[in-house]
Amino acid sequence: MENYSKDLGRRAGEALARLRATHPLIHHITNFVVMNDTANVTLHVGALPVMAHAIEEVAEMVNLAGALVLNPGTLTPEWVESMLAAGRRANERGVPVVLDPVGAGATTLRTQSNLRIMDELRIAVLRGNAGEIGALAGAQTEVRGVESVRGPEDIVALAGEMARKRHLVVAVTGKRDIISDGRRTLGVDNGHSWLTTITGTGCSSTTVVAAFCAVEPDYLVAAASGLACFGLAAELAAGEARGPASFKVALYDHLYNLTPEQLASGARILELE
Amino acid sequence: MENYSKDLGRRAGEALARLRATHPLIHHITNFVVMNDTANVTLHVGALPVMAHAIEEVAEMVNLAGALVLNPGTLTPEWVESMLAAGRRANERGVPVVLDPVGAGATTLRTQSNLRIMDELRIAVLRGNAGEIGALAGAQTEVRGVESVRGPEDIVALAGEMARKRHLVVAVTGKRDIISDGRRTLGVDNGHSWLTTITGTGCSSTTVVAAFCAVEPDYLVAAASGLACFGLAAELAAGEARGPASFKVALYDHLYNLTPEQLASGARILELE
Amino acid sequence: MENYSKDLGRRAGEALARLRATHPLIHHITNFVVMNDTANVTLHVGALPVMAHAIEEVAEMVNLAGALVLNPGTLTPEWVESMLAAGRRANERGVPVVLDPVGAGATTLRTQSNLRIMDELRIAVLRGNAGEIGALAGAQTEVRGVESVRGPEDIVALAGEMARKRHLVVAVTGKRDIISDGRRTLGVDNGHSWLTTITGTGCSSTTVVAAFCAVEPDYLVAAASGLACFGLAAELAAGEARGPASFKVALYDHLYNLTPEQLASGARILELE
Repeated sequence: MENYSKDLGRRAGEALARLRATHPLIHHITNFVVMNDTANVTLHVGALPVMAHAIEEVAEMVNLAGALVLNPGTLTPEWVESMLAAGRRANERGVPVVLDPVGAGATTLRTQSNLRIMDELRIAVLRGNAGEIGALAGAQTEVRGVESVRGPEDIVALAGEMARKRHLVVAVTGKRDIISDGRRTLGVDNGHSWLTTITGTGCSSTTVVAAFCAVEPDYLVAAASGLACFGLAAELAAGEARGPASFKVALYDHLYNLTPEQLASGARILELE
Repeated sequence: MENYSKDLGRRAGEALARLRATHPLIHHITNFVVMNDTANVTLHVGALPVMAHAIEEVAEMVNLAGALVLNPGTLTPEWVESMLAAGRRANERGVPVVLDPVGAGATTLRTQSNLRIMDELRIAVLRGNAGEIGALAGAQTEVRGVESVRGPEDIVALAGEMARKRHLVVAVTGKRDIISDGRRTLGVDNGHSWLTTITGTGCSSTTVVAAFCAVEPDYLVAAASGLACFGLAAELAAGEARGPASFKVALYDHLYNLTPEQLASGARILELE
Repeated sequence: MENYSKDLGRRAGEALARLRATHPLIHHITNFVVMNDTANVTLHVGALPVMAHAIEEVAEMVNLAGALVLNPGTLTPEWVESMLAAGRRANERGVPVVLDPVGAGATTLRTQSNLRIMDELRIAVLRGNAGEIGALAGAQTEVRGVESVRGPEDIVALAGEMARKRHLVVAVTGKRDIISDGRRTLGVDNGHSWLTTITGTGCSSTTVVAAFCAVEPDYLVAAASGLACFGLAAELAAGEARGPASFKVALYDHLYNLTPEQLASGARILELE
């Protein structure tokens, strides 16, 4: 029996209530595969989506935003420039920037582009899987790479180290999500294995994290709250799944219907260190 | 009890029957978020979709089309050039051009690009929400902007004024859709609030309007018919919705299954002035 | 009563079992309309999807892949260059390249780009409908075009001729799919008319063919197996369809749930010549 934090559950529920009351705009510069999905997820969680990538308009658009998602999943160098331009304006305005390093480690372009984004911008939350975060840590430190990430303890160490070095919140999603700001580390046990059967659920969890960052200034808590919210919707949906597509329909329905009270009581967030 | 026009209902039904019989090709140059959705909506209403944006092929493609949709939702300047090239050829060939000014008013690029498209092309129908249409009217007249659009009467005036100035049909969607060609103004009361919970329903309604423009040369009637068709499918779907994603599945199913007779009797179109 | 091959059914089932056991990466350079759909279809059949089109990374990405899908559906000349760069590396590494010539025949850009891809690369399987394949054959031979493709016998002749001339496997999908490597010709009778009511099912069948090519080195058998797999899932889904969107949900669910044993017994593949 894990010792889940009632206080962090309550804060997650309160953040969701604020999202539903204030409908912040979440500006995405994201990959083509998930644009429709993440726009819907943004709406269902209570925020408003806008997708805009032209370098001529990204800075102006981010002025209107409560958070900025950078997701270089189907990147080209031109898109990275737009991400940097949007991110610089976001940094000037105090708009939290959430980075999803899709496929970091797979190619030089992906790894280098994500490192450059982290070098040039102040990132609020970096949300990826263990392979992606490990690749970024390894390329940076030239000490530890994906291969060395073997178990939960390694991921806690990896997240904390990366968070301290980069001065950001690192959220490594997996069976247990690990979130660290370099001082505190949280775990989130919400989620379901059906999430691995459809594309873009990592990207969608990043979108939910960004929406929570727009209403919760402690980004460690925001990231854990967003992951608990998305994971809890998945748990509720699992009972209705006859396969991945009916699961996805149920996931979106439950994300929309999830109440702050349900999230407060159903969030399984714990303090790890 | 509103005084819905039986004659306009009948004409909507007849147009749907022609769509189902002739399957016109609807060429889209549209945003990345809704490409899949609007391709499906095109098929379900009875037409055939093609998405093509390369400046090397858009003029050749539009030669084959019954209508052209321009939707600069995730625009870059290059895409605007392709829209203009396609639109010029459509104008030469008498193919109706339907413009969806997604996000007009949000950034200078969006507002200016939409104004330029309206300046350089002959648009059959401009379909947007009150904010987008107001932004385009305001930027043009420098007299009235989004802020001045407050109620149904204002929207009727806005649509009529814009239609007269621009020589096109203006369709402002909302709880009651307002459609004007500058002389006549129609209202459409079909629709459902579930439509606001998923992304791209405005874009999809534009697609349906374009499909109807391919088979109904009175674009005022075509626009009202298309909005009644999409809105009626939403009404029929609402009873099956357990959330936004199950609503979307039901919406597409009902759009496909909707018969010309159902549309003729279920369309709630009225003459306003 | 057709004489379906038990041996080819068995080989299809065995290939599906290998897919589910080895999860090969399928690198897609594909069109914007179907990216999300084909990523999900890749996952549901047992493989892993990656979408990457930047010329800076495609060669590096294809190094990791079990198959490469080239689908120039929303092409620009820049994307064609990326397809060629990825394809050249795939050819060097022995990674099978599957080409889906979406819209060939509709515009000069589409026809010429697909011909160039076939001229410069070694293609494992060309998967299209009769119109697309006919357009590519006609443009090449300047003898027979789309107009001359009239019935099943013509398609068998067309596929065989194209396969011999181009040294590839040609898969022409339709009511009966025809697959030829120039020596042997197979027919696949799996499928359902609901597939024509949603966008991207041709592209999705290409994705399934590519996944099978990653685990079955006889690409004629791989293509027939993939088409039987996708078609059988459609047959199973048809009973649950209330319209095209509920059909699509059921299709994806059944594709995921389909077992190698079901495929072995349900595949309707026959040897035609």
